[in-house]
Amino acid sequence: MDAKGDFAMPVINENYLKLPGSYLFAEISKRVTDFKQDHPDANVIRLGIGDVTRALPSVVIDGLHNAVDEMAREETFRGYGPEQGYSFLIQKIIEFDYKPLGITLDEDEVFVSDGSKSDVGNIQEIFGLNNKVAITDPVYPVYLDTNVMAGRTGELQGDGRFAGVCYLTCNAENGFIPALPQEKVDIIYLCYPNNPSGTTLSKAELKKWVDYARQNGAVILYDAAYEAYIQEPGIPHSIYEIEGAKEVAVEFRTFSKNAGFTGTRCAFTVVPKTVVAKTGKGEDCPLNKLWNRRQTTKFNGVPYIVQRGAEAVYTASGQKQIKALINYYMTNAKTIREGLKSVGLEVFGGVNAPYIWLKTPQGMDSWSFFDKLLTEAYIVGTPGSGFGPAGQGYFRLTAFGSQESTQEAIERIKTRLSL
Amino acid sequence: MDAKGDFAMPVINENYLKLPGSYLFAEISKRVTDFKQDHPDANVIRLGIGDVTRALPSVVIDGLHNAVDEMAREETFRGYGPEQGYSFLIQKIIEFDYKPLGITLDEDEVFVSDGSKSDVGNIQEIFGLNNKVAITDPVYPVYLDTNVMAGRTGELQGDGRFAGVCYLTCNAENGFIPALPQEKVDIIYLCYPNNPSGTTLSKAELKKWVDYARQNGAVILYDAAYEAYIQEPGIPHSIYEIEGAKEVAVEFRTFSKNAGFTGTRCAFTVVPKTVVAKTGKGEDCPLNKLWNRRQTTKFNGVPYIVQRGAEAVYTASGQKQIKALINYYMTNAKTIREGLKSVGLEVFGGVNAPYIWLKTPQGMDSWSFFDKLLTEAYIVGTPGSGFGPAGQGYFRLTAFGSQESTQEAIERIKTRLSL
Repeated sequence: MDAKGDFAMPVINENYLKLPGSYLFAEISKRVTDFKQDHPDANVIRLGIGDVTRALPSVVIDGLHNAVDEMAREETFRGYGPEQGYSFLIQKIIEFDYKPLGITLDEDEVFVSDGSKSDVGNIQEIFGLNNKVAITDPVYPVYLDTNVMAGRTGELQGDGRFAGVCYLTCNAENGFIPALPQEKVDIIYLCYPNNPSGTTLSKAELKKWVDYARQNGAVILYDAAYEAYIQEPGIPHSIYEIEGAKEVAVEFRTFSKNAGFTGTRCAFTVVPKTVVAKTGKGEDCPLNKLWNRRQTTKFNGVPYIVQRGAEAVYTASGQKQIKALINYYMTNAKTIREGLKSVGLEVFGGVNAPYIWLKTPQGMDSWSFFDKLLTEAYIVGTPGSGFGPAGQGYFRLTAFGSQESTQEAIERIKTRLSL
Repeated sequence: MDAKGDFAMPVINENYLKLPGSYLFAEISKRVTDFKQDHPDANVIRLGIGDVTRALPSVVIDGLHNAVDEMAREETFRGYGPEQGYSFLIQKIIEFDYKPLGITLDEDEVFVSDGSKSDVGNIQEIFGLNNKVAITDPVYPVYLDTNVMAGRTGELQGDGRFAGVCYLTCNAENGFIPALPQEKVDIIYLCYPNNPSGTTLSKAELKKWVDYARQNGAVILYDAAYEAYIQEPGIPHSIYEIEGAKEVAVEFRTFSKNAGFTGTRCAFTVVPKTVVAKTGKGEDCPLNKLWNRRQTTKFNGVPYIVQRGAEAVYTASGQKQIKALINYYMTNAKTIREGLKSVGLEVFGGVNAPYIWLKTPQGMDSWSFFDKLLTEAYIVGTPGSGFGPAGQGYFRLTAFGSQESTQEAIERIKTRLSL
């Protein structure tokens, strides 16, 4: 009998057993299927998931076609590219996304990837297992689940929280502005504009987090997937707009939500060389070096074709086209937001983000409101409780549908929903 | 002072510090650059890396263009797809790659991914840290490095081996057929046709490993990236041709080497539902379930466009075109193999694989032969020692160049190399 027991077999990563099943979208799917069986003629409108529905911008289509043609000829064919992404794309990212904000970055501080989900999921690998992780509650589940899988948490507890994780509650009472942690934390995940709540932090609020990280020795993993949806002045588009952030923050961005790349897959992560963590001996180690090692060892880069498609976003017409896309979705957001308000619901988000977060009426729990919305108005949304215990009593609708179906959905809410 | 020391900062994953720098290709690049500075007119031929050079097959180009056009219209636009890959591709994989071998697979046993490098790098995450890992020596470095990074090994030792890892020596003395381990191992990485040695295992030899795994409770991670290069009968294309392998083996395949997808990125991994590992309590847990959880949590699927490109490989003309590609490269392999033999070098591989593995003359070390080949014949190859200590005294050439440059390279070896 060895350390693994009296059986001769590989042992699994038991941290996986701590995770509950991914019940949220499976349960949604089941309830919708059941409803449709009972109501085969019901025209169900889905405003549940965060997936875009508009076609790719025509500049992107042209960029993709041109790159496909390059792959058809030996002289222009591309095999393995740099794991970190092609220079032609990284230069544009720096020039268009950061320089106008007064932020300077070196090319080797930007890592192109196949998606922010991959990057926010994988980034924890470069940290030791004894770091204390802080997440907001509610939260995009990937931050939490990947830390559970790595063994950086204890077990799931009765209150729906994992032991050993610092949860930062965001609700109507605190205006969805998380309070600084009371305990020392090492790694802080922040997502602004926020998924699922659609709320933002002002520069002053974000500065509190950067200052906290600098004073307490923490790293901020900043998910800015929805930055393109910011409409109001004074809301930071990048955490590096905050003084000192380049010492403590990693930023994640994606082409999924500004240019419709959810099925085309391209994103990038900024890891300034000035962000360090400690070795066990207390020496500084730049995260940039570790992330570079992680990516070059376990990843082989984004398709050349796709990187050329992403590059096209940074042409003059590309910038216009993605602005038009965002306006389209933000018109939906306004429709939803104002429609819900007009029937007396309490609504958050939807001003600088494609997500509308509503408080369920009469203290109804999230799943009961899901059923009510489905059965009375034939609309599918996402129960807030699926994003964490503090999401209980809230509900998420997204602005990613067509304008026609979004308007129809709101009309139904106004006319069919008993409130 | 806390468990992490008297500093308030996140601690890195210290396992990364065990890795030496990726000196191999950096050192090759440096030596080539230096040489070119001294010999600006030298026409250097690169037969060093495993990257393809021929254009994508025209059926793939057509498939990509068509899919790009679909992304241009709302009615056919695709957002998030299944993380595991689209059914249209998985069905073709099963039908064309496995059914003719008498192997039946369910759709949910095949996971489409962005590359075998990602999959062979990430697969170890689903296993506990106390499993004993076996790798061949020489080896594709990703298997080893990702286990080092995860903390499944000790430190690098003076003999070039990491403590805690079982190395299976493959050299001319044992005909590059690794002996079964003397100690109990849990996870075995095998790659056939082999990178870097270009050698294969017969069905009988591979059966020994499957039997070992079944009898001793081990899992085989079988990298079949080069299976399309197999020319001779009797060499298994899939490990599932061996009886019982579906109980103990995971298989990795890629479109990189058969269809030229190194820069287009598509691969797949087969995880039969019958392969299990143990929980700490000794219960069986299917790896399929764990890998599905890993992929759905940390990955968002391969671009729709790229999956349509891969699907095109499985048309009648696609099958013809990839066969022509492989013949092209295998003609190079023959040129290299026979050319090296004609000057009296001892040569392995190159018959069922695009890699030719040669024994350096007069017991020269791998780097000395690198310098000799570069300075005398202006040819770049890869020192065998870069693949592990047992690669010392060997050297890798690849068949992925153009036929013209490959023939020119062999001509130079015949006429300029002093042996």
